[in-house]
Amino acid sequence: MSTKIRVTVWGENVHEQKHASVRDLYPRGMHAAIAEGLSEAGDLEAHTATLQEPEHGLTEAVLESTDVLTWWGHCAHGEVRDDIVDRVQKRVLEGMGLIVLHSGHYSKVFKRLMGTSCSLTWREAGEKERLWVCNPGHPIVQGIGNYFEIPNVEMYGEPFGIPTPDEQIFISWYEGGEVFRSGCTWKRGNGKIFYFAPGHETYPIYHHESVKQVLKNAVRWARPEGSRWVDTCPNVPIEQAAEPLIQKGASLHKPGEAGLK
Amino acid sequence: MSTKIRVTVWGENVHEQKHASVRDLYPRGMHAAIAEGLSEAGDLEAHTATLQEPEHGLTEAVLESTDVLTWWGHCAHGEVRDDIVDRVQKRVLEGMGLIVLHSGHYSKVFKRLMGTSCSLTWREAGEKERLWVCNPGHPIVQGIGNYFEIPNVEMYGEPFGIPTPDEQIFISWYEGGEVFRSGCTWKRGNGKIFYFAPGHETYPIYHHESVKQVLKNAVRWARPEGSRWVDTCPNVPIEQAAEPLIQKGASLHKPGEAGLK
Amino acid sequence: MSTKIRVTVWGENVHEQKHASVRDLYPRGMHAAIAEGLSEAGDLEAHTATLQEPEHGLTEAVLESTDVLTWWGHCAHGEVRDDIVDRVQKRVLEGMGLIVLHSGHYSKVFKRLMGTSCSLTWREAGEKERLWVCNPGHPIVQGIGNYFEIPNVEMYGEPFGIPTPDEQIFISWYEGGEVFRSGCTWKRGNGKIFYFAPGHETYPIYHHESVKQVLKNAVRWARPEGSRWVDTCPNVPIEQAAEPLIQKGASLHKPGEAGLK
Amino acid sequence: MSTKIRVTVWGENVHEQKHASVRDLYPRGMHAAIAEGLSEAGDLEAHTATLQEPEHGLTEAVLESTDVLTWWGHCAHGEVRDDIVDRVQKRVLEGMGLIVLHSGHYSKVFKRLMGTSCSLTWREAGEKERLWVCNPGHPIVQGIGNYFEIPNVEMYGEPFGIPTPDEQIFISWYEGGEVFRSGCTWKRGNGKIFYFAPGHETYPIYHHESVKQVLKNAVRWARPEGSRWVDTCPNVPIEQAAEPLIQKGASLHKPGEAGLK
Repeated sequence: MSTKIRVTVWGENVHEQKHASVRDLYPRGMHAAIAEGLSEAGDLEAHTATLQEPEHGLTEAVLESTDVLTWWGHCAHGEVRDDIVDRVQKRVLEGMGLIVLHSGHYSKVFKRLMGTSCSLTWREAGEKERLWVCNPGHPIVQGIGNYFEIPNVEMYGEPFGIPTPDEQIFISWYEGGEVFRSGCTWKRGNGKIFYFAPGHETYPIYHHESVKQVLKNAVRWARPEGSRWVDTCPNVPIEQAAEPLIQKGASLHKPGEAGLK
Repeated sequence: MSTKIRVTVWGENVHEQKHASVRDLYPRGMHAAIAEGLSEAGDLEAHTATLQEPEHGLTEAVLESTDVLTWWGHCAHGEVRDDIVDRVQKRVLEGMGLIVLHSGHYSKVFKRLMGTSCSLTWREAGEKERLWVCNPGHPIVQGIGNYFEIPNVEMYGEPFGIPTPDEQIFISWYEGGEVFRSGCTWKRGNGKIFYFAPGHETYPIYHHESVKQVLKNAVRWARPEGSRWVDTCPNVPIEQAAEPLIQKGASLHKPGEAGLK
Repeated sequence: MSTKIRVTVWGENVHEQKHASVRDLYPRGMHAAIAEGLSEAGDLEAHTATLQEPEHGLTEAVLESTDVLTWWGHCAHGEVRDDIVDRVQKRVLEGMGLIVLHSGHYSKVFKRLMGTSCSLTWREAGEKERLWVCNPGHPIVQGIGNYFEIPNVEMYGEPFGIPTPDEQIFISWYEGGEVFRSGCTWKRGNGKIFYFAPGHETYPIYHHESVKQVLKNAVRWARPEGSRWVDTCPNVPIEQAAEPLIQKGASLHKPGEAGLK
Repeated sequence: MSTKIRVTVWGENVHEQKHASVRDLYPRGMHAAIAEGLSEAGDLEAHTATLQEPEHGLTEAVLESTDVLTWWGHCAHGEVRDDIVDRVQKRVLEGMGLIVLHSGHYSKVFKRLMGTSCSLTWREAGEKERLWVCNPGHPIVQGIGNYFEIPNVEMYGEPFGIPTPDEQIFISWYEGGEVFRSGCTWKRGNGKIFYFAPGHETYPIYHHESVKQVLKNAVRWARPEGSRWVDTCPNVPIEQAAEPLIQKGASLHKPGEAGLK
């Protein structure tokens, strides 16, 4: 039995179909490029899933055998089925890792887990981005120096409508004068979440060595720890209460009221 | 013009209609009792809104003139319209305060803003609850001693499926042996959120002096600060970029690509 | 009796004595300039205190009547007496606001309250800084637009060795390619803390209108809320315990062991 | 070369010398009992260090080869040398894990890293404690059920003077009516910190199976991830700045001012 970390790389897979310029950069789709980058590492095993597949490729069985899910979407967020969003959220809360990429900031999945607008400012001018490391010892930045650069990107700027991250991993500097919290972590339930800003579809960003390195690191960081947190919102019967309550329990218990629940 | 803090007390208003035992405690409804408690304070002005009213009583105009919204729901969470939840979430992110009460932990509004399961354990045995203060200097606990007690409550216990609170205000001890994070704060967008656990419909909890005091304090704490954060996810034209980018802007800008957005 | 917010502006007051260039910018000292800026607001009342005064001007009486303390130090951090640092820390934990400025990132007071290195990277090249607002609705940024610029500054860059801020208020962009979390808030005990990066002594930064505006806003935000948290680490006698323990208390209490405390 | 996690168990080792009752429970000292419990696990390798050894047993070499340090102290906090506290803090910020036990809440090391009072309320009445799990999937609680009990403990109660934990792992219920945040995590610099409340010297708490299990789990959770964060507060020469600044750098650089640093 494989002991590799099992990654599902989800891709919206729309721009690749419509625009030759995107297809030139990613002949088999952005999702394929991301998965290939991850699979370079011997300890990772990446499969892909796309919007167009039945259940968007995210069946119960697929999620059941996914340690870490990566998410890239842009123009078709609205086409993602709400019940699949429910399913992904549930698995994250149980412990599955989630890595949200670039325009995925506006995906249903990310907005669901953050609870905020997830809004930002943006400009498409092919400018240079420098991603600064905020904690050089963090597992996600291993193999990266103090910063790395991407020559041409879509700018994403503050204010970024997110809850305060648990840890700030990267902050970006843009040639055009903006800044952005481009690498952020949160824990929700028992699942680790990493948002990573690079990845506009018109640039070869997922072929960039440092981006590929960060994604490998992030998958390892986000893999499940501990066990699943299976949520049942359980009723605790009085028989399990501490002694004093059990002793006077009979008189306190009001079966008639239970119907109000 | 009134300078009072304008509170809208939202109530599901179902148990009161169905159960004489609840109606005996709250003849005009729980929402009315909560609003009356708040209005005892000269600086607060509380109105009510209920599930049964058009748009659940939460029209754009009502939310527009609400500084702090309190939320009590239990058996009819599913009947709250999603577009009204969207509206409430938007106003919280802009800066409106939100106080979620008791079984409101499972409301659409709270789950939307938290992004987590919001699950807990529970038992209905009329046991005693002691609410301990975690920061005696906090505005929400002014006028309360080290702790206060409620003689008969529904038990709510850990694990509570929430993101780590910004501040822990109360932790409850129950006669039956459980504990619960019964007072928690978060900030989301520009809005302050307070979850407060007491409030089961079969006990006179909203007539309890300490509960009433906490609610008054919480409303004052949660009132909007600063200005509205109006979210537009704006595009930043290159003309507003820093100098170096403007100078080479013409060659970088790719109008053809803009269509991908 | 005045109801103004009482601010004590603490200044190291060394560069001003040694360097004519600093004295030219701040003839009465940086602390005087900061205090004058604050006092422009009708609701603020600012006094100064400096390293050279007895007890550094921070006697028990002064701190007792201080709502918010601002701190600027640079080359003489080591000369600040540890017992005064204890005193300031205690007052912050009780509820006094604290605003730490620029090179105060390395002050004993800030390092004491953060518990981390408080380290950063830096360069003195008079470059331009843009401070971006991360939450446009926050009280600290009222009257500031999306960002403001300071034409010549010392660069402070990431990684900044701080605990994750409760809220990110500003992030700075520098002409030279760096970024910095230049406005951060934390709560410690019952006290609010704001770190604000601008303020190098060789530039007229405390005469800058936006800097002055932020400082006024920050003082209002940091003023004490609620009541003092007076810490006594109290022993709770068994007579105050819940009933079940009191009943069996006699047999449990082991006076002989108490001596181990 | 061993790939085990290297733990240094630090013990104050004073009560054991003075009180026969403590020696009866822990014949070789509490530190020895803690280390023996950890060493039951095949992947952990625990050594001890005590206050009485040169440099308290925490030489540079020892800390250099320590992955996780556990800390128990009570009546002799004041005897711990400040330079050793500096050394421990530095190693935690670099990435060494730290587990602070029971009365270690008042140790110099913990107070240094928290920046707060670390105060609490307490009572010594041998009462029962129930430790509730707040996230059943967390690595630290693996092998523990919903809660576990310790029959006789010293009570530690709220308010606990700590910064808001990153994650709440345990909350305790006491027979006498109190509650306490008895398991808390924080990250400071690149180091993980876990505070765990059980461990009064007059009870056999470190022989308790669940306590031993939690300590093993906690050591694994706290082990260093990533690489060391070696702090140098570096100056960034202008030659490393982004292009635009370099071009106008000569005119901006003011060598005369550098002397102010």
